[in-house]
Amino acid sequence: MITRSRFPRRAIIVVSALLAAVTGSVTTHAQVPQADGPRPEVCDDPTNSLSLFAENMGGGRIGYGRVPGKASVPGPTLTMNEGECLQVTLVNDSDKRLSMHAHGVAYTPSSDGTPTNAGCVAPGRAKTYVFEAPAPSTRPDGTVDPGSAGYWHYHDHCMGTTHGTGGIRKGLYGALIVRRAGDPLPDRKPIVLVMNNISFNNKTAPHTPLPQVNQGERIEFVVIGHGELMHTFHLHAHRWVDNRTGLAATVRDTDRIIDNRTVGPADSFGFQIIAGEHVGPGAWMYHCHVQGHSDLGMEGLFIVRTPGGELTRETKAAIRRYKNQHEGGHP
Amino acid sequence: MITRSRFPRRAIIVVSALLAAVTGSVTTHAQVPQADGPRPEVCDDPTNSLSLFAENMGGGRIGYGRVPGKASVPGPTLTMNEGECLQVTLVNDSDKRLSMHAHGVAYTPSSDGTPTNAGCVAPGRAKTYVFEAPAPSTRPDGTVDPGSAGYWHYHDHCMGTTHGTGGIRKGLYGALIVRRAGDPLPDRKPIVLVMNNISFNNKTAPHTPLPQVNQGERIEFVVIGHGELMHTFHLHAHRWVDNRTGLAATVRDTDRIIDNRTVGPADSFGFQIIAGEHVGPGAWMYHCHVQGHSDLGMEGLFIVRTPGGELTRETKAAIRRYKNQHEGGHP
Amino acid sequence: MITRSRFPRRAIIVVSALLAAVTGSVTTHAQVPQADGPRPEVCDDPTNSLSLFAENMGGGRIGYGRVPGKASVPGPTLTMNEGECLQVTLVNDSDKRLSMHAHGVAYTPSSDGTPTNAGCVAPGRAKTYVFEAPAPSTRPDGTVDPGSAGYWHYHDHCMGTTHGTGGIRKGLYGALIVRRAGDPLPDRKPIVLVMNNISFNNKTAPHTPLPQVNQGERIEFVVIGHGELMHTFHLHAHRWVDNRTGLAATVRDTDRIIDNRTVGPADSFGFQIIAGEHVGPGAWMYHCHVQGHSDLGMEGLFIVRTPGGELTRETKAAIRRYKNQHEGGHP
Repeated sequence: MITRSRFPRRAIIVVSALLAAVTGSVTTHAQVPQADGPRPEVCDDPTNSLSLFAENMGGGRIGYGRVPGKASVPGPTLTMNEGECLQVTLVNDSDKRLSMHAHGVAYTPSSDGTPTNAGCVAPGRAKTYVFEAPAPSTRPDGTVDPGSAGYWHYHDHCMGTTHGTGGIRKGLYGALIVRRAGDPLPDRKPIVLVMNNISFNNKTAPHTPLPQVNQGERIEFVVIGHGELMHTFHLHAHRWVDNRTGLAATVRDTDRIIDNRTVGPADSFGFQIIAGEHVGPGAWMYHCHVQGHSDLGMEGLFIVRTPGGELTRETKAAIRRYKNQHEGGHP
Repeated sequence: MITRSRFPRRAIIVVSALLAAVTGSVTTHAQVPQADGPRPEVCDDPTNSLSLFAENMGGGRIGYGRVPGKASVPGPTLTMNEGECLQVTLVNDSDKRLSMHAHGVAYTPSSDGTPTNAGCVAPGRAKTYVFEAPAPSTRPDGTVDPGSAGYWHYHDHCMGTTHGTGGIRKGLYGALIVRRAGDPLPDRKPIVLVMNNISFNNKTAPHTPLPQVNQGERIEFVVIGHGELMHTFHLHAHRWVDNRTGLAATVRDTDRIIDNRTVGPADSFGFQIIAGEHVGPGAWMYHCHVQGHSDLGMEGLFIVRTPGGELTRETKAAIRRYKNQHEGGHP
Repeated sequence: MITRSRFPRRAIIVVSALLAAVTGSVTTHAQVPQADGPRPEVCDDPTNSLSLFAENMGGGRIGYGRVPGKASVPGPTLTMNEGECLQVTLVNDSDKRLSMHAHGVAYTPSSDGTPTNAGCVAPGRAKTYVFEAPAPSTRPDGTVDPGSAGYWHYHDHCMGTTHGTGGIRKGLYGALIVRRAGDPLPDRKPIVLVMNNISFNNKTAPHTPLPQVNQGERIEFVVIGHGELMHTFHLHAHRWVDNRTGLAATVRDTDRIIDNRTVGPADSFGFQIIAGEHVGPGAWMYHCHVQGHSDLGMEGLFIVRTPGGELTRETKAAIRRYKNQHEGGHP
């Protein structure tokens, strides 16, 4: 007896979706259903609502965007806090059926985003997915519900095959961050790097991201795997902890400190670092450490400016060399 | 000076092995040897003993079973508690030499189950392997012996090659769970999923397991890798902790919460979840998230019924769609 | 304004490098520069300095060594303590440009060892790399700098491609261990096993390492991945904890206990075990658990003698069988 939303007319879809995109929220007054399952298909108030528009981007790519005409690969980074519920209205402006399947959060079958659970969206139609981010709690039997904080992601699960292989290949994926109360917040928006087949974000060097930040800023990376291949993610000159946040809990932490990590399809992790900590400004490579993958252009630069926001001469020279390496010259 | 058991006659083997299978235990009065090594090849009393029968199953499969004629892929799930010793008498009813090599537990060379340590069993013969599950303890130097609790496994190490490549390919593998005092017990027997080449348990959809459980039950998964390929295991709508038990120790646990994990050959892990927690009943996919693997049928359904044990209409419809997807129709 | 060292003449290079090799240390009186970055390119006193000589080894291999004519694959194991700074003068006695890129430690762009940061060394030239191993500390904002303790590694990043694919393939890699105050020390020098394509240390059985140790000794393994392929490392009859040190912190530790681990290119981990604990002397296999890799010879033996240093009859027989398996006979 789950409440199902129907969007019979395209005009209504776009207006309400745009409204949500502008206001960042829509008020819902849904009946809490007497469900077989424990959760309705709409969030209780208060709620966060937003829209995603899936559309062709040219060059064989299909992406998600927050407003029509602005799709990107990866799609927008979605952020939740544990305890929150999020409604996402997906508008399919492409010419193929597709969906949104989220990792890490809770959802009823209707929001699973799979053909098996009838969660695909036909071209020209829309569908609202509801995601809940449970907070940790102690169960009546004394065991612990771990919550859902993490560096997660969402992706198509319908296009091409029942697993969305066609959609993922074309770029239908994005990051979903669930934060726990007390988690430090980064100083800039997260750097999302998706290792999809032999690419970052469906691009190879010199077209991969070259994020620029200032020395001393708290920077957050989210790394996601997709596709057919295993990868290892390596960042030069920085290190982090191999746990939920990438941050050590204490100076006596026993978790492994790493600067390289295996990333299989749909694996995801994130971490925060202080840009240039111990090392200063520079053009620091990130790359897949599978040698053949990096040699094919699965690499980029994490550019750390001075604390005042300037590029050092040394950094400018490194950027120049990097670009020359990818202009057909001898590496 | 390790005591070696000899089984000269087939009849004696089967009688004693069946006896162990029926009683679940055999009494041993072995001399504790004055060994080069610290452990005898028989367990001290009290002991657990059981038999495994390896046999051809048809369809190119070979499996282990607790009684003749009942081999399965995977083989029986073996369970120990830290501090215990287990004797397994392996009877080879197949036509090729094979063995049992266990992960995670302690054994002398004679129970290593490899050609190198002369641990194979010829067709028509039997051999007793002895496995000890050490409990954690503090060593005299102050460091900690970690114990052996974990979601482990056992497999052939003799058939086809010195690494048992032929036996593993055909299905000679199973789960071995070592529990620590205080570990929560599941409400049902564990769901064992072995990612062996592009299959679960040497099967592809729609023939992969479709376990049915009730919402609210504590369910235990054991995931094991085998063969030649890397995989990632993903379960829909549930999440667990990436540690020894899959359970958070406290609500402030810092371990990573996951719903997807890389699984290489002979990697193994397990976790317990509350079926349908936060999400209710449903047909929840589990699959390898390497896209090409799932598209080739490396997937199945974890079916959560209502707390009263009923399948919802929605769940029945999902199961129907899943089966249709694998009947040659358009996915 | 980082101080750059120039080595214009080969003779000076070799003399000073050899001096460092012999004394284990060179005194530096560098000016602390007013740098864009926070760290000079020389260590402050007191400092550790050493030299590495890269050279052709025959058989298509190129290795690093502590003195000329003594290169090895892997190169020398370098060890630091958190809080220390290390200067390595790399002398290129090969006929191709190459470098040294370190994982886990801090360095300025000049010591990155990449073409992008102009860190390669031409044939016949030398370059000093400076590596700092930060200790954990609490930052002014209350978060924790995790430090740099770990089982890391170094490798070429210049030969063949901008990622050093040619150098790594030929053997230009080694272990770099950073210890934390209080970490237990092993009783012997670490056993370093690099899973580079389908080899350990560029060798296959029966030419892979066969380390011999005595039962009861504290033995340290360092396992490093390289090249193009994913592997899983398995050691028979022993287990360790999947954390920074491989050691459980307490008898109630919740980290996963393992005896098999996925290793991707540039992943690295280490652990300490008590040789033969619970199992006694024996010839214990270590191998990649990707079946096809082990069958191609990606395996070796960890040989545990009696506490008094003797090989048991059983162990000798196992070594004999192992060697026979690799002499073209039936496995």
